[in-house]
Amino acid sequence: MTDIRPGDCADALAQVREHSPLVQCLTNIVVAQWTANVLLAVGAAPAMVDNPQEAGAFARIAGGVLINLGTPYADTAAAMEQAVAGATDAGTPWVLDPVAAGALAWRTEIAGTLLAAGPTVLRGNASEVMALTGGAGGKGVESVDTPEAALDAAVELAGRHGTVVAISGPVDHLTDGTRVVRVSNGHPLLTKVTGVGCALGAMIAGFAAVLDDPLLAAVGATATLTVCGDRAAAAAAGPGSFAVALLDQLALLTPAELADRVRLS
Amino acid sequence: MTDIRPGDCADALAQVREHSPLVQCLTNIVVAQWTANVLLAVGAAPAMVDNPQEAGAFARIAGGVLINLGTPYADTAAAMEQAVAGATDAGTPWVLDPVAAGALAWRTEIAGTLLAAGPTVLRGNASEVMALTGGAGGKGVESVDTPEAALDAAVELAGRHGTVVAISGPVDHLTDGTRVVRVSNGHPLLTKVTGVGCALGAMIAGFAAVLDDPLLAAVGATATLTVCGDRAAAAAAGPGSFAVALLDQLALLTPAELADRVRLS
Amino acid sequence: MTDIRPGDCADALAQVREHSPLVQCLTNIVVAQWTANVLLAVGAAPAMVDNPQEAGAFARIAGGVLINLGTPYADTAAAMEQAVAGATDAGTPWVLDPVAAGALAWRTEIAGTLLAAGPTVLRGNASEVMALTGGAGGKGVESVDTPEAALDAAVELAGRHGTVVAISGPVDHLTDGTRVVRVSNGHPLLTKVTGVGCALGAMIAGFAAVLDDPLLAAVGATATLTVCGDRAAAAAAGPGSFAVALLDQLALLTPAELADRVRLS
Repeated sequence: MTDIRPGDCADALAQVREHSPLVQCLTNIVVAQWTANVLLAVGAAPAMVDNPQEAGAFARIAGGVLINLGTPYADTAAAMEQAVAGATDAGTPWVLDPVAAGALAWRTEIAGTLLAAGPTVLRGNASEVMALTGGAGGKGVESVDTPEAALDAAVELAGRHGTVVAISGPVDHLTDGTRVVRVSNGHPLLTKVTGVGCALGAMIAGFAAVLDDPLLAAVGATATLTVCGDRAAAAAAGPGSFAVALLDQLALLTPAELADRVRLS
Repeated sequence: MTDIRPGDCADALAQVREHSPLVQCLTNIVVAQWTANVLLAVGAAPAMVDNPQEAGAFARIAGGVLINLGTPYADTAAAMEQAVAGATDAGTPWVLDPVAAGALAWRTEIAGTLLAAGPTVLRGNASEVMALTGGAGGKGVESVDTPEAALDAAVELAGRHGTVVAISGPVDHLTDGTRVVRVSNGHPLLTKVTGVGCALGAMIAGFAAVLDDPLLAAVGATATLTVCGDRAAAAAAGPGSFAVALLDQLALLTPAELADRVRLS
Repeated sequence: MTDIRPGDCADALAQVREHSPLVQCLTNIVVAQWTANVLLAVGAAPAMVDNPQEAGAFARIAGGVLINLGTPYADTAAAMEQAVAGATDAGTPWVLDPVAAGALAWRTEIAGTLLAAGPTVLRGNASEVMALTGGAGGKGVESVDTPEAALDAAVELAGRHGTVVAISGPVDHLTDGTRVVRVSNGHPLLTKVTGVGCALGAMIAGFAAVLDDPLLAAVGATATLTVCGDRAAAAAAGPGSFAVALLDQLALLTPAELADRVRLS
C-alpha cells in the first residue's frame, strides 16, 4: 500500500540536518516563535518574512515556504499571495496550512484561492481538509472529524490540485492521491501545546526543500515530529515541560532512532 | 463580606474542564502563544481571531472573548470593535484588559470606548483601573499603585458600567460593585514572566463562558492561576522554569486541590 | 587595547538591577515574548509599544528603545520612525538591530535610513554589519561571515554614525570606533534558540538606559547574556531546556559571578 519505509524517513531527516534548508514562514502571531524554534531544533534555518514588500522576492531564494492562515491580516494575506507567486515562479516547494478553514469565511476564501495555486503540500486537521472540499468545517481551530473520515476528501484534493495532503490527528494520514501513508505515533499531549500542527507545516516545507518526493517530505516530517512527541511525553509532567522536551528531542533524535520508532502503515 | 467560597472555585474549574469553552482572543503579539498555552493547559480551547474581517462573526459563536490592548494596531483595534459588537449582539461574555491604559493616549481612548460598551469583566492592574476613572496611570505596563488603593475606583467602575472589576496584584481584589473578594495567593514570580496578567484575562473569559456569575468566573480563574503559581514557584529555579511549571500545574491541578489551597477573604 | 574590565560589567549589571529601566521594544512577532521575558529576568521592565499612534510619545519617557527589523510591516515601520524621532528628541538611547539587512531590499533601505539617524548602538551579526557598509549580506537571518571579518566595517560605521557597533558571533566584537572589546563566552546553543541576538539588542537598550558609556552598555549586556548562556548550556539537554535555563540564569547571575566568568580582551 505504501512504498515509503522507516529507512526513508531516516534518510529524509539526515538530509535536513546536512543541508539546513532555509524555510520562509508566513505564519501566525501565536506560533511564530515556536515554529522558528522547532525548525532550528530539527536542523533547518527559519526566516519569518511575511510582509508584502519582501515576501515574493524571498520565496525565490528560500528552500521552502510555509503559508499558514492562523492570524491573517490584510497586509500578511497580500504577502502570502506574493510568496506563492514567487515560489511558483522559482519552483520553490510550498506548504499551505489552512488553519480554521471552514469555520471562518474570509480565510476559507483565501485558502481556496491559495489551494487553486497548487501547493506542494496541504497540511491540516480533518475538519479543515474536509472544509476545502465543501464540508462543514470545525469549531475554531480544532478538528471535530477524524483523519479517517477525511481521507476521501484528501485523495480528491490531492488529485484535483496535484498536491500532497497531510491530515494530522491521532493517526496521521497522508496521500498524494495514489499512495496513502499512515503514521501512528500521535500522542495526546501534542494537542495540549499550541502550534504543534503549525510547526509541522513548517517542518514539511523544510523537508520538501531537500527531497524530491513531496509525500516523503510530509511523511518524514510527520514521523520526526510525532516520534519526538512520544519521547518527550515519556518524561513530561504536563504540557509546559512537554513542549520543552519536544524541542530537545527534535535536536537529539538520530535518523536511526527515527527508523526504529516510527510506525508506518 | 463574600458569598464566594473555595468550593465554588473548585466547581468553576470543573466546569471549564468539562465544557472546554472556545475562547476568542484579540490579544497582543507578546503573549499570544503563552495565552493559548495557558488556555489549553487549563482545559479551554483558544482561537486567536483578531482581524476585522472575521472577529465580529467569530464573537457570535465563541464561548467567551478577550480584548487585550497590549499591542493595538489600526487593524486589530478595528477588529476589537467588531468583536465587542458581535459579543454584545450574541450575549457572549467578554473581558477587557486595558494594558497600559493611562500611560499612553491612544489606547486609553480605545479602552474608554470599549469600557463604555460594558464588558462582562474588566481585568487590569491597579494603575490601569485607576486610570480609567481619570487617575494618573502607571509607568508603561507595570502598576505603580496597590490593588487596595484602586478598590474604590473599581467599585465605582463596576457600578457605572455593570461590569465585574478584577484588580491583579500581590492580593487580587475583585468586585461586582456590591461584593468584594480578595484572593491572597499571588507569588512574586508571577510578575517575572510576561503575560501572566494577560493570560488571566483570557482565563476569565473562559470561566465566564461556562458560569452564570461573572464575579465567580473572575475569582475562579484568579484562584486557579495564582494557586498554580504557588505550586510552580515551589519547584522553580527562576522565571524560565517557573513559566514551564506553571503550565504543567494548570493542567495538573484538581478542583479539590484548588479548594484546599485558595485563600479567599 | 580596552579600558573596559570585568568589574565594569559587574557594575553595569548591578545598575540595571537597581534601576529596572523601562525598555520600549519595537521588535518582531517571532521574538516579542522571549525578549520581554529576557528583560524581566535580567531586571529590566519591557514595554512593547510599536504602533505609530503611540511609539513616538513613549520613546520620550522610556529609558531605552530597541528598533528590530525582524518582521517589519508598513504600520510598525512607521512606528519605528516615530520612535527614533522621539528618542532623538528626548535624548533616549536607542539600539538598532537590522535583522537580515543585505538579504532583503526593503528592510535594508529602512536600516540605512535609521542608521543615518545615529543609533546609540547598532547590534547585528557580521553579515548584517557588512551589508550596511555596502557588503553582500547574508542568507536570510543567519550570518555567513565572522565577526573578525566584519570588524573593519564596524569601525567604519562607528566613526561615520557616532554609534557603538556590536557584532555578535562565536566571539563578540564591539567597538565605538576607537576602542575594540572582544567577549569570548559565546556558546553554540545560543544559535539554536530563535531571538537570542534580538533579545541582546533589547538588553543593550536597557543597559544603555542606566549607563553613560554606550560601549560599556553593549559589552555589559553581551557579557551578561553570554555568561548566562555558558551556565545554561552546562545543564541543558537540548535547545528547549537551554532556553528555559537561560532565563533562569539571567535572574540568578550575580555581578560578582559575571566578573569572575566573563572573558574580555
